[in-house]
Amino acid sequence: MIIGRVYGSVVSTHKLEALVGYKFMLVQCIENGSLVDKFLVAVDIIGAGIGEDVIITRGSGARMALGKPDAPVDAAIVGILDEKQA
Amino acid sequence: MIIGRVYGSVVSTHKLEALVGYKFMLVQCIENGSLVDKFLVAVDIIGAGIGEDVIITRGSGARMALGKPDAPVDAAIVGILDEKQA
Amino acid sequence: MIIGRVYGSVVSTHKLEALVGYKFMLVQCIENGSLVDKFLVAVDIIGAGIGEDVIITRGSGARMALGKPDAPVDAAIVGILDEKQA
Amino acid sequence: MIIGRVYGSVVSTHKLEALVGYKFMLVQCIENGSLVDKFLVAVDIIGAGIGEDVIITRGSGARMALGKPDAPVDAAIVGILDEKQA
Amino acid sequence: MIIGRVYGSVVSTHKLEALVGYKFMLVQCIENGSLVDKFLVAVDIIGAGIGEDVIITRGSGARMALGKPDAPVDAAIVGILDEKQA
Repeated sequence: MIIGRVYGSVVSTHKLEALVGYKFMLVQCIENGSLVDKFLVAVDIIGAGIGEDVIITRGSGARMALGKPDAPVDAAIVGILDEKQA
Repeated sequence: MIIGRVYGSVVSTHKLEALVGYKFMLVQCIENGSLVDKFLVAVDIIGAGIGEDVIITRGSGARMALGKPDAPVDAAIVGILDEKQA
Repeated sequence: MIIGRVYGSVVSTHKLEALVGYKFMLVQCIENGSLVDKFLVAVDIIGAGIGEDVIITRGSGARMALGKPDAPVDAAIVGILDEKQA
Repeated sequence: MIIGRVYGSVVSTHKLEALVGYKFMLVQCIENGSLVDKFLVAVDIIGAGIGEDVIITRGSGARMALGKPDAPVDAAIVGILDEKQA
Repeated sequence: MIIGRVYGSVVSTHKLEALVGYKFMLVQCIENGSLVDKFLVAVDIIGAGIGEDVIITRGSGARMALGKPDAPVDAAIVGILDEKQA
């Protein structure tokens, strides 16, 4: 998994039917205690807020996070860190 | 997922039978509000136009986007962003 | 998927039994209209020739391309581009 | 798999129910005998200590390491190296 | 797949039960005919020797190489190249 900070939400009105209802967050990656110039979009199913540091699972594990093995996603926020990492 | 801008279409007359009928778009990745020198080819099943900013699912999740678990693809456009990101 | 140019073939006499009969091509990646210093080996099942620009599917989708969900591969040439990209 | 050194633990009180009980370690990657500026979070199921060099399996194989094909993870520590690598 | 040169073996006495009996090799990646500063650990099931150039399958395909869909690995040596690549 990787660590990142929730940067903001991503709004897509026109998307696949299977994605309706999910909240997409733009997350900035953290490496070695610093925010780096790498971003990804992750589905948020635990209610992470902007500015919080989170754990992100990528790949097929993200679908497991959603409990939907056929969800067309590749990244999900699976935990909020107790302490800031950057 | 990652964010990118649709750069153009990719035409391949000679391809696998399983890919016939799909539209392939060349997408330029966006990092931190800027277009970067990284491209990928994604299947478009939602009708994204050139110049639009989109969300792309990679890996096995792209097959889920197509609703074909055995499609030989690894990237699909799953949503069009309401606002430009770069 | 990514775009690359077929650079040459890769010969491996001593390989897994499951790979016997497949043709392995060394492909040089193309980014933004230029050949870059990144190579990968992809199974060729559509008869791509050296110097041709191709679409490559990576990951589990490559096994779908072969029609063998248990093939020990992670990249396959799935289409030949009509126009050169670099 | 990749090699890394266990840097510390990662605490997340608010996480997915499916992750409760697992120990998450922050691991610093090792390349060519040196610690590099790349980190990842891996589930530890073999009791690796801080400062130990470990083997990490990423992707769907990490779920196999946990013996839970539906665990929402993408990295797991699968072995502790007998000798330091950096 | 990627090409690399077998650099040495990796010894891990304390590892997951599912990995006992497998031989882990440290492989240095080759790009464009040169050894580069990128390493990975791959399971060797074909008897590759140190200094040999090999083809490596990564991801879930590595489990297929082992013939064990539930093996906790993500890279396997699947072929030895007839000619040195670097």
